[in-house]
Amino acid sequence: MTLEEISRTRCFDGQQLRFRHRSGTLGCDMQFSVYLPPQASRAKVPAIWFLSGLTCTDENVMTKAGAQRYAAEQGVALIAPDTSPRGEDVPDDPDGAWDFGLGAGFYVNATQEPWSTHYRMYDYIQDELTTLIAEELPINPLRAGLMGHSMGGHGALVIGLRNPEKWASLSAFAPIVAPSQCPWGEKALGHYLGDDRDAWKAWDATELVRAGAAQKPLRIDQGEDDNFLAEQLKTPLFEHACADTGYEASIHYHPGYDHSYYFIATFIGEHIAFHAAHLRGSD
Amino acid sequence: MTLEEISRTRCFDGQQLRFRHRSGTLGCDMQFSVYLPPQASRAKVPAIWFLSGLTCTDENVMTKAGAQRYAAEQGVALIAPDTSPRGEDVPDDPDGAWDFGLGAGFYVNATQEPWSTHYRMYDYIQDELTTLIAEELPINPLRAGLMGHSMGGHGALVIGLRNPEKWASLSAFAPIVAPSQCPWGEKALGHYLGDDRDAWKAWDATELVRAGAAQKPLRIDQGEDDNFLAEQLKTPLFEHACADTGYEASIHYHPGYDHSYYFIATFIGEHIAFHAAHLRGSD
Repeated sequence: MTLEEISRTRCFDGQQLRFRHRSGTLGCDMQFSVYLPPQASRAKVPAIWFLSGLTCTDENVMTKAGAQRYAAEQGVALIAPDTSPRGEDVPDDPDGAWDFGLGAGFYVNATQEPWSTHYRMYDYIQDELTTLIAEELPINPLRAGLMGHSMGGHGALVIGLRNPEKWASLSAFAPIVAPSQCPWGEKALGHYLGDDRDAWKAWDATELVRAGAAQKPLRIDQGEDDNFLAEQLKTPLFEHACADTGYEASIHYHPGYDHSYYFIATFIGEHIAFHAAHLRGSD
Repeated sequence: MTLEEISRTRCFDGQQLRFRHRSGTLGCDMQFSVYLPPQASRAKVPAIWFLSGLTCTDENVMTKAGAQRYAAEQGVALIAPDTSPRGEDVPDDPDGAWDFGLGAGFYVNATQEPWSTHYRMYDYIQDELTTLIAEELPINPLRAGLMGHSMGGHGALVIGLRNPEKWASLSAFAPIVAPSQCPWGEKALGHYLGDDRDAWKAWDATELVRAGAAQKPLRIDQGEDDNFLAEQLKTPLFEHACADTGYEASIHYHPGYDHSYYFIATFIGEHIAFHAAHLRGSD
């Protein structure tokens, strides 16, 4: 069996599911979570993918964001992949730091040893997992939106901007918009991709916009009391790239909100409605 | 300072708060969580208390139930106490079991050593914490509803049925309705209260209804695929007591739903609306 079902729980008249499968791309077993709205019992539904942040697994957004209510209302599935390859064979940060290695795949294809064998989260999300889900679940692969949080916001923007034909709409909560210009990103890209900073540009949303990425519906929400805003997230770098190139992005700052799931929970209903509006008309 | 603020996070335009305080009733430091809706910045608001189940702390419902959206819409606060006394001096299950001791106070006043020194969760909820919150936070103590899950559903029903003048409305998700007649309850009441089963009756919602508890608005939701329904929760025992005594309770069974927070999240909006309707008219 291609997909092993780990759990199935009823939620808002739909199904909260968790699966395990063997990933050829990553060379390890992986888990992911899916919420199928009630409409999926009758027909294939559009899906919104949520890429999570540092230290998370596929479970965080499903248990903490309160997203299923909105997905059920809009008739869209939610898909949450894990944030890195997993398993005893998969190398981790040698110092055990939480911002690199396990739980911190940064959604790139690593080119440097020892990371390049397993750390290929870009290909995993963009190709292997989307194909597997289209084959095995009642989800329409031609109607897909992509969102994420923090490191996963970086992942959503990069994967979406590089593949505008596949993703109808993009959004992010508190994304790392310019990994080439912040400590988290410099550490990760340096290890996964090597010291040549030119090789980083294809994995940096701000650089992708400056290089002429195709226009897509794109929304970002950022809390003004987010402790990571100034040093790591640097939303204004993306805003400036959009302004300089004429890229239309809807960027919202929120006084008083921080980096937590309480922030995500507050605005995820608007994000799901944003994606659903674009997904309804996209095939 | 009576209340030490541990954290403050903006959520749905209100405030998600966590506090620490010294409990004289329990003889230890305690933590609890509060969600204040945006309306609380202008006036005192009604509150719904949520008592959690075995192994939980004050944090589970705040992070996993998706409740803040509904509380903000209805203009009610949410208050989540911890589930037992805490600290090195507090005795725990001698075998380290999760269904008794720490995280499993069962909302009773223990009469047996070594439990009676600290395990007084009934007095803590009913008197000490309600008084403290009325003094320190913008919450109207005359408009209070009480709900809970599993062991906390038991707690909500018992505390509410014993104190109808204080709690305007009662509700429970998958409550232990008859602790005198299930393994979890028999273990807990036997240790906390001793072997005399007559002493258990004041701590058993089914017995309280049979003894003529005053009518209050009361709602219960129960998943039919809940693994604990047959052996531990035994909802029909409460239904029969209501039928026999003419107590009007609104009891809803839901096919396919289990004991998890996915079940709570699905129906907590209806519970909050149920309480809010009664709290608006109650003073």
